[in-house]
Amino acid sequence: MRVATRQGTVIALGVTMTLIALASHASAQAPVSMTLAQRALATFQPLPADFAAPETPITAARLALGRQLFFDPRISLDGTVSCARCHQPALYGTDGLAFSRGVENRLNPRNAPTVLNAALQFVEHWRGDRVSVEDQATRALLGAASFGLPNDDTAVVRLEALGYAAEFAAAFPGDSAPVSARNWGAAIGAYERTLATPAPFDAYLRGNTRALSERARAGLATFLDVGCSGCHSGAGVGGGRYARFGLVKPYWSETGSAVIDSGRYSVTKDSADLFVFKVPSLRNVAKTPPYFHDGSVATLAMAVRIMGRVQLGRELTDTDIGNIVAFLESLTGKLPDDFARSPTLPGESR
Amino acid sequence: MRVATRQGTVIALGVTMTLIALASHASAQAPVSMTLAQRALATFQPLPADFAAPETPITAARLALGRQLFFDPRISLDGTVSCARCHQPALYGTDGLAFSRGVENRLNPRNAPTVLNAALQFVEHWRGDRVSVEDQATRALLGAASFGLPNDDTAVVRLEALGYAAEFAAAFPGDSAPVSARNWGAAIGAYERTLATPAPFDAYLRGNTRALSERARAGLATFLDVGCSGCHSGAGVGGGRYARFGLVKPYWSETGSAVIDSGRYSVTKDSADLFVFKVPSLRNVAKTPPYFHDGSVATLAMAVRIMGRVQLGRELTDTDIGNIVAFLESLTGKLPDDFARSPTLPGESR
Repeated sequence: MRVATRQGTVIALGVTMTLIALASHASAQAPVSMTLAQRALATFQPLPADFAAPETPITAARLALGRQLFFDPRISLDGTVSCARCHQPALYGTDGLAFSRGVENRLNPRNAPTVLNAALQFVEHWRGDRVSVEDQATRALLGAASFGLPNDDTAVVRLEALGYAAEFAAAFPGDSAPVSARNWGAAIGAYERTLATPAPFDAYLRGNTRALSERARAGLATFLDVGCSGCHSGAGVGGGRYARFGLVKPYWSETGSAVIDSGRYSVTKDSADLFVFKVPSLRNVAKTPPYFHDGSVATLAMAVRIMGRVQLGRELTDTDIGNIVAFLESLTGKLPDDFARSPTLPGESR
Repeated sequence: MRVATRQGTVIALGVTMTLIALASHASAQAPVSMTLAQRALATFQPLPADFAAPETPITAARLALGRQLFFDPRISLDGTVSCARCHQPALYGTDGLAFSRGVENRLNPRNAPTVLNAALQFVEHWRGDRVSVEDQATRALLGAASFGLPNDDTAVVRLEALGYAAEFAAAFPGDSAPVSARNWGAAIGAYERTLATPAPFDAYLRGNTRALSERARAGLATFLDVGCSGCHSGAGVGGGRYARFGLVKPYWSETGSAVIDSGRYSVTKDSADLFVFKVPSLRNVAKTPPYFHDGSVATLAMAVRIMGRVQLGRELTDTDIGNIVAFLESLTGKLPDDFARSPTLPGESR
């Protein structure tokens, strides 16, 4: 299998089990004197305040426009799909469905990941076939099972009819054709780059060891010890690399998935990518069931149990699972106010 | 035709034109010394703070529960429909569609009215076949084209699985079976009874004549003079009675409606109810296109022009229409914070 890090380095591993060995090895090497907090800091980082990047600036004009566009279904082919349809604030940026529904009720092939902290990930979507939140948004607008617009021109016509032209011009100064599908995605991306949800775990990483309950701290230790953190690491507690789902045994033997998804193989046609997915960020995971790329598992405890079996070849005890779930609950952050609160959209009266 | 007032009195009018004559007559009778504000107060009332009723108390427990349920799609047959799907905060409690879409993309027969101030109306829905917001909600839960649940038992099972049992028990103390479709509707009704949007026009009615622009005041005068206020009166500026749509000429001759809707006739089978609809409240009308029961008209100016033609037999001038639209814009209120802001829903972590 191949593992791409956030920086794009590709590591070739002859034996998939090597990953587990590496994780166990790192754990065994930790000096006895190292505190849990120190071990955590060697693996995770606190969430940044936002996910701005030089090429994707968060300007006030883009942010205000992107927030409106995120909540506006009227641009979609049948008028029923906004970003917020599959990424609802009340459900922590998800829709609660195994597979999302787009225009004309079209079924999406995979579970909708949350938009919260999504911009932190090294790529987007389960298969990593979207390079950024901007790319994801723009391609959703033109995607048959999401917004369903046939082409860029339709997007321009609809956005102008909805009264957005002046806002696009202000958000993309110097652009000779500011109203475009690409800039629709760029504005939404700017907004999504503000959707950070700092959580108790961040307070812990910043030195407040009381921010986690005793049970959550025990879960964190287990999470590090058994090797979950081999993949779920960094500021996102995941979202920084690819991994095969089912290192030890086929994932569907435990999830009971109705359809076997070949994962990134369906993008690259490289057999090394069979059943490989982007490792999801675990931030807000307790708030975003159902689980996995196909929403095949309803509860977090069962998802953790299955991960132990198919990734680590280990039958986690009920105590381990309870503790890990308590740790994962410490990744639940506060909804950003500009996400929990809907904007009002342009209409006849502005 | 028959006209039912909020109190349920039925007035039989032999000739439909009588209504127009009455309106003109009332206008002509107004003493010259009566100010515009006095005339307005004789026809309209400021919006109350909420729409509580003795039989539908707004308790804190019902309100909190109802607000969560309003935003939770997971109870619907296919998991895609919450109240907020057709009544989106970003679109002032509507969905921007001509006809709403329910579970499995099923088409609803009429345009979704806003939930804002809806509880103020004497009946709900375009045909008045829902007696209250509570009734509307409960019947939506079991309606094939809305939430699609086949029966009450399914509602109970789903609500308990979603983790709502304790909240229902707290919201409906003394009820031996608190989790029910009926109480789902009662909780949502309690929430909707708080969705009041006081607007500049209310400030005007309370004595601040500067709260309306000169143009809006001119529009108000025209609205009273030409007879719009014959039907659109009271605290809701409508929502208090039934009226035939197309008193002077068939409405579809002006709206271009693809389908002719027989209105309340389809409920009562009384030929006097042909093309009779509940007069909609005009609060927030500038924010809730498209217009009429079938969303057949896109702009407020055109809707006003058509109302002049089909209800009043009058070709309003562009100036009249512009002024009336300015008045109607003064009915746009502030979104209630508990509506603009999504709650977070019960999940695995509460």
